[in-house]
This record gives sequence, structure tokens and C-alpha cells, in this order.
Amino acid sequence: MALLSILTPVLVVVLCLVIGFMLLKPQETGTPSTKTNLVSKADFRPWVDQDLQDDTKVTAREDEDGDVVDGNEEEDSPHVPFSLPRYPEETILKRAEDFYTLMNQRRSVRFISPEPVPREVIDIVIRTAGTSPSGAHTEPWTFIVVSDAEVKHQIRLIVEEEEEMNYRQRMGDKWVHDLAKMRTNWIKEYLDIAPYLVVIFKQTYGILPNGKKKTHYYNEISVSISCGILLAALQNAGLVTVTSTPLNCGAGLRQLLKRPANEKLLMLLPVGYPASDATVPDFKRKPLDEIMVHI
Amino acid sequence: MALLSILTPVLVVVLCLVIGFMLLKPQETGTPSTKTNLVSKADFRPWVDQDLQDDTKVTAREDEDGDVVDGNEEEDSPHVPFSLPRYPEETILKRAEDFYTLMNQRRSVRFISPEPVPREVIDIVIRTAGTSPSGAHTEPWTFIVVSDAEVKHQIRLIVEEEEEMNYRQRMGDKWVHDLAKMRTNWIKEYLDIAPYLVVIFKQTYGILPNGKKKTHYYNEISVSISCGILLAALQNAGLVTVTSTPLNCGAGLRQLLKRPANEKLLMLLPVGYPASDATVPDFKRKPLDEIMVHI
Repeated sequence: MALLSILTPVLVVVLCLVIGFMLLKPQETGTPSTKTNLVSKADFRPWVDQDLQDDTKVTAREDEDGDVVDGNEEEDSPHVPFSLPRYPEETILKRAEDFYTLMNQRRSVRFISPEPVPREVIDIVIRTAGTSPSGAHTEPWTFIVVSDAEVKHQIRLIVEEEEEMNYRQRMGDKWVHDLAKMRTNWIKEYLDIAPYLVVIFKQTYGILPNGKKKTHYYNEISVSISCGILLAALQNAGLVTVTSTPLNCGAGLRQLLKRPANEKLLMLLPVGYPASDATVPDFKRKPLDEIMVHI
Repeated sequence: MALLSILTPVLVVVLCLVIGFMLLKPQETGTPSTKTNLVSKADFRPWVDQDLQDDTKVTAREDEDGDVVDGNEEEDSPHVPFSLPRYPEETILKRAEDFYTLMNQRRSVRFISPEPVPREVIDIVIRTAGTSPSGAHTEPWTFIVVSDAEVKHQIRLIVEEEEEMNYRQRMGDKWVHDLAKMRTNWIKEYLDIAPYLVVIFKQTYGILPNGKKKTHYYNEISVSISCGILLAALQNAGLVTVTSTPLNCGAGLRQLLKRPANEKLLMLLPVGYPASDATVPDFKRKPLDEIMVHI
């Protein structure tokens, strides 16, 4: 009993320590070793490739005013006059309709021709993507344009290995019945064949002149918007792509392409002319009244 | 001492319970009452408006093959031939450059003219946004186009109330010094003035014919891409907007606009012609070699 009595204060101390640790714990939950300190420590999502997370939003409340705009938060910038060409109404309608017709011909195409595409065209479409608005004008995108055959093949190996695992993991249940069909899904020949692979990284933070990290708010939304403008530019040039977000390939591709710690994989777009025998699934888009409500 | 001795086993039990609770805790962290069962229970992010989260990615591993594409996952769809106009190289370059010049003139503009814009133009640009690719061709977007003056004003009240709170919360620290400057930030006259407000919702899930929920993978990325295409369409028509993601306004705007439970606010775009005295901050975009790496 004397021993127990001596132990009591020790237990009280241990209990206090454990409770204290518990209270701190919520802030520490789920801090994978690869995470930067910009990520809320409570932001733990199992099963998800770190590279596909938009880490910035956890602190979005601290954002200037929540606008994804080019630098309008930077109130200190001097303003300059802005104008656009003002077309007559019939011209506006004609332009709008022509652009709709062009964009409506766009489809995600996996049958890409190996024919070379002038490098200058790629430069211009990437430049066009770079005109996108971004949270606080951070321009948080990096476009890695790969034309080197060996690097393209390495990318294919990384993507196919992960895809195959994804498929095999699902073989246990409903997908067992059709191995052949699945196989066509994890084999991605276009990653070798397309003259260019555009690997898009989002910069989750920047580095200030004093060496401190600067959170890039809404970086995933910003880079996705710039991807939309890139798709428009590719379509306008007669080029095709398929917008893919390779699961769990972030670490592998980041290492292969030597990207810094603040860059996370967002998308991978093979780019080229459509193959002469290209096909696409025969589906329709929703009519306007299913996607728009006027009030 | 006898009392302490009696307490000892009690303390041991309490200690065990506390440790046991701790071990369970990580799985229970952060299950806000408003979350749907599509969200991983460990997916807790404090401070963030629920509407700005992309809930789908937590289960992305179950996705077909992680592609954000128009329906290429639907392997059962019959395929049809696909082709695009094939331009000579000089034409491709010219088209690419012209489109870059057009897009490079785009800026986020908060000074919008009250002049009416033909409703037909708005229909066409929304239709154009609807040509965007989406995860498994779910087309998970709803565009609410508001031209009713009273509803626009209600939207302004909701947005300004939240913005003012956001600003006032920050007054305690570094922002105290310039109240006047902050005031200009939470007042958003353009929400009354612009002839149209386009409120963009992402559909986080769909409802299957059997009544069950169907997760829309990558819905936030998909809707952001479609927003990029919308920005291109607006610019092409000579219209301006500012891409905003109003913080914490999701519940209010969803209620005002009577949106169903599966729709979450993503963006709010005032649309119109630029005001004749419109100005924008005087900044530059990054040069190509800062956003692109060729390998």
C-alpha cells in the first residue's frame, strides 16, 4: 500500500500530461512527414495523394478578401485605365457563337498522333494559360513541357504502375469480371506517343525575400482555371488532349521532374494532333436549361 | 495516505480510459454536423467555409482511373470517329498568337458598366462553359444567372456582411492602421451595378435513379476548369468580370438562390461591359520562363 501511495502522485502527473497532450493533439493530427508547415495540422485526409489536395484553403479565412483575382488585393498598386474593344451587338453575338462552336468541338481525346507539333505553338498556349487570374496574383502554376522520349516513357511507367495498383485493388469486388477491360484502362500508350506531355504543378506556397513561406490561397482553383484557358487555347490551335489527374503519382513525378517542395502535381495533359483514326465516346452534353437557372 | 491509496486504482482506470479515448480520437476528429456521409470523417479543416471545400477527393482512390475527362471512363459507351480541322503550321501559329493576344487583354475588373448586355450572349457563354471536361462526364456545375435587381442586392448584402466580419476580425492585428482602405474592400458596389451576377455552384454529388448518392469526383477541379473556359468566352465577347470566391457566403447564397443540398458555392462572377472609367492595378504577368520548363 505504501508503494501505491507513492505511485499516486506519479499517476496524477502522468494523467495531467496525457490530458494536456490530448488537448494539443487535434492540432497535430495527421501531419505526414512530407507536409509543409503551411498545411493545417488538423487537415488529415486518408487515402488521398497529398499532391491532389488543395492545402491552401485551410487558412483561407486569413485571405485578403477571398477573391481569386489578378492582384486586386494589392491595393497599393497604382491603377491604370482599362478598356476593351466594344463591338456592336450583332458582332458580340457572332463572336460568342463562333467561340461556342469551336469549344463545343472539343473532346477529351486519348488517340493522339505522334506527328511533331511546332514548339512555338506550345510556348504560346502555355503563355495563354498564364494569363489566368489567380488568388492575390500569385500565378501559382508551373507547366512542365516534356518532349524528351525517355522522360515521357518514365512518366508512363510511373503512371501505369499506380494505375495498375488502383485497378488491382478493386479487383476484389465488382471489377473482377472483366480483366481485359480494366487492362485497357491502365495502359496509357498516349504517354509515349503524344509529342508533348504537359505536367501541371500547383505552387502551394511561395518564398518571400526574407526566406519565409507565403501561402498561395486558392492555388488549386487558380491552376484549374488556368487549365481551362489552356484547353481553350489548345482547341483553338487544332490540338487535342485529355485532362487527367493521375492518382498517387505526385511524389514519383515530382522527383522525376525535379520539382521543389512547394509544387504539387495537379494535372497531366498529353498534347498533339488527334490521330487520324481517333474516336471518342458517343455522348451528349447537358442542355442549357440543365446547367443554368436565370433569376 | 489511505485515501490516496484508494484513489490509485481509480486513477489507473481513468488513465487507461483517457489513453483509450486518445487512440480512438484520430478517427473521430472533426465531423461537423453539416457534413454529408460522403466526407471522410477524418477530413476536418477548421476555419474553412464548408462550401469552399472539395469534399470529393477524400474518396478519390475509388475513382475509375483518376481522369478528369468527358466520359472516357464510360467504357461501355460506343465510340464515334473524332477529327478537328487541321490547319497549316503558319495558320496554327497565327491562331495561337491571336488567341493569346485576346486572352492577355483580360483583367479582373471591378468597375462594371450598368449598361444592359443581351441575355442571348449570357446564354451562349454559359453554354460554352458547359463544354468543359469533367470527372467521369458528370458535368457537376450549376450557373445561376441573376439579373433581378432585388436578388442582386440581397446577394450584395450577404457578401458584404461576411466581408465586413472578415475584415473586422482582422482589425485586431496588423490591419488596424488603415480602416479607410479596408472599407473600400468590403463594399462591393459592382454586385448591384453589374447587369448579371453569375453564381457558380459545384455539385458535390448526384442522385442515381435508385435514390442513392453518386459522388462527383474532382467536382471542384472540373467546375474551376469550366470557369476558365467561361472567362475565355466572356473576354472573347468583350465582357469583363472579377473571379471571386466569397468566404463563408455559401449557406446564405444557397438559401437565397434555393439550391439543393448537393450544390456548394464555388465562385461569384459579376458580368458586364467595363465601365468607361474602369481601372485595374498596374502589374505584369510572369514571363514564360518563370512558368514553363521544357524537358
